[in-house]
Amino acid sequence: MSEKLIQRLCVIGVGLIGGSLARALKKAGAVAEVVGAGRATSHLQKAKELGVIDRFETDISLAVKGCDMVVLAVPLGAMQTVFEKIAPELNDDMVITDVGSAKGSVVRAAQAAFDMLPDTLVPGHPIAGTEKSGVEASFAELYNNRRIILTPLDTSSDSAVNKVRSMWQACGAEVVETSIEHHDEVLAATSHLPHMLAYSLVDTLAKMDEKNEIFDFAAGGFRDFTRIASSDPGMWHDICLANREALVKMINKFSHDLQQLSKAIESNDSDYIKETFTRAKQARDKYCDSKNINDSLE
Amino acid sequence: MSEKLIQRLCVIGVGLIGGSLARALKKAGAVAEVVGAGRATSHLQKAKELGVIDRFETDISLAVKGCDMVVLAVPLGAMQTVFEKIAPELNDDMVITDVGSAKGSVVRAAQAAFDMLPDTLVPGHPIAGTEKSGVEASFAELYNNRRIILTPLDTSSDSAVNKVRSMWQACGAEVVETSIEHHDEVLAATSHLPHMLAYSLVDTLAKMDEKNEIFDFAAGGFRDFTRIASSDPGMWHDICLANREALVKMINKFSHDLQQLSKAIESNDSDYIKETFTRAKQARDKYCDSKNINDSLE
Repeated sequence: MSEKLIQRLCVIGVGLIGGSLARALKKAGAVAEVVGAGRATSHLQKAKELGVIDRFETDISLAVKGCDMVVLAVPLGAMQTVFEKIAPELNDDMVITDVGSAKGSVVRAAQAAFDMLPDTLVPGHPIAGTEKSGVEASFAELYNNRRIILTPLDTSSDSAVNKVRSMWQACGAEVVETSIEHHDEVLAATSHLPHMLAYSLVDTLAKMDEKNEIFDFAAGGFRDFTRIASSDPGMWHDICLANREALVKMINKFSHDLQQLSKAIESNDSDYIKETFTRAKQARDKYCDSKNINDSLE
Repeated sequence: MSEKLIQRLCVIGVGLIGGSLARALKKAGAVAEVVGAGRATSHLQKAKELGVIDRFETDISLAVKGCDMVVLAVPLGAMQTVFEKIAPELNDDMVITDVGSAKGSVVRAAQAAFDMLPDTLVPGHPIAGTEKSGVEASFAELYNNRRIILTPLDTSSDSAVNKVRSMWQACGAEVVETSIEHHDEVLAATSHLPHMLAYSLVDTLAKMDEKNEIFDFAAGGFRDFTRIASSDPGMWHDICLANREALVKMINKFSHDLQQLSKAIESNDSDYIKETFTRAKQARDKYCDSKNINDSLE
């Protein structure tokens, strides 16, 4: 009998996030067997060939059988369907977590799928990723020194929370806990809003008559600024609808401040402009450059 | 007598842009002598110690004496004053260009400073830079494979345009020509607007109660997205006022599109959201990833 942290892990959705988790746990010797689950046999076959998973099932009910850890790494819009397929197989030894970028919607999906919320369910969200997607982009170091936010429910058992925390720590990540509401507000500000701005900016420019010249004259700063607009459209469609309320609130807050800046430019209000830019530069330099972010990921 | 392209170059404002130009021309053997000019002796002394310039003057009228090429690399708000100091020293052998990010304002500054526009004046703008500033950040390769936009005036002589073009080509840059109006519209879209969005976003977040957590939970994508908010506030103050009209027009266009996206999110309009994100990703992948942008600069 193995002494590993996880005996049988089921990763549902073996892409960048799920695949990197499986790779990291294997590399750490923290998992005995990894079962991949998903809809596309070709992707799962690829994941097996890459050694990311040991075997796979396209039937989720079969895939989770006998698993002591099940990780949902599917788009937010698919969570409820997946929970429904897990429900009949649920047991006290099966810890369930997810990697969704909006936690309120995951809990609503679980509430809709289960008669009652299982005490083995612990929602989570790794603050990590690249603009790439797919198992080919996965790598074992993705979570190294990254934050994982867990949002345990009132129903979550201590042992389930501990097991999920240990899983992420085995990947080299730092685990923090917060409330679902707080998570969703902070992520709307720091991740979901910037993605909306990047998508919206690139689309605005792409619709202009001079689009060829516009992109042609774009310098390096533009490429950095718009990198997140290369993220997966389907995934981000799900995220912005799943966190609709907090996100729309943040868009409105941002739009208001941008209009103030625009008015200041129109009316030649030097003080307002200089103060805004200076505050922003100070905040950005203070918070971002001091952080130990792994540059190789960017 | 040396055969070099430029006998005596005066760089007014020896920072990242002016300093890198001097370094590149020296490295290419295209200049015999470089005179630095500016207000701060300490900066000029530093530039001389670094070998970027050969000597310096804090009096611009003295600095430009006997120069066959004068490059204004000062903030846009300082252009008129500098032109006024050059005016008494003007002669037919002194070619004058600048590196300002908004060309209409440079021409207005020249019109205000000179009795008539000199035929040796050729406005220009290198599409290159980093979020850093100062002569310490300058390097000879900054313009390698980058675009330089020249916006020659009706008054500009062919020989002056040719000399400015040759100067940038000697730095490894590709030189293109366009109208002032077109330049200012394209730059408003591709550079000035993104800077406003980055500054405004960081400032919006920095004003929130949860700012510490917000920046703490920011992932790599956020750091990329906001890198340009670390740019020099004084320089960007000048740019946004100098290109006020085109910039405000672009902010309004962007704000309108962002509001449409926000409404689509609020009303659960999946098609609109997916189409917007997909168009943006396609444009970004097509235009940005295919470009040969020097990654070491970012």
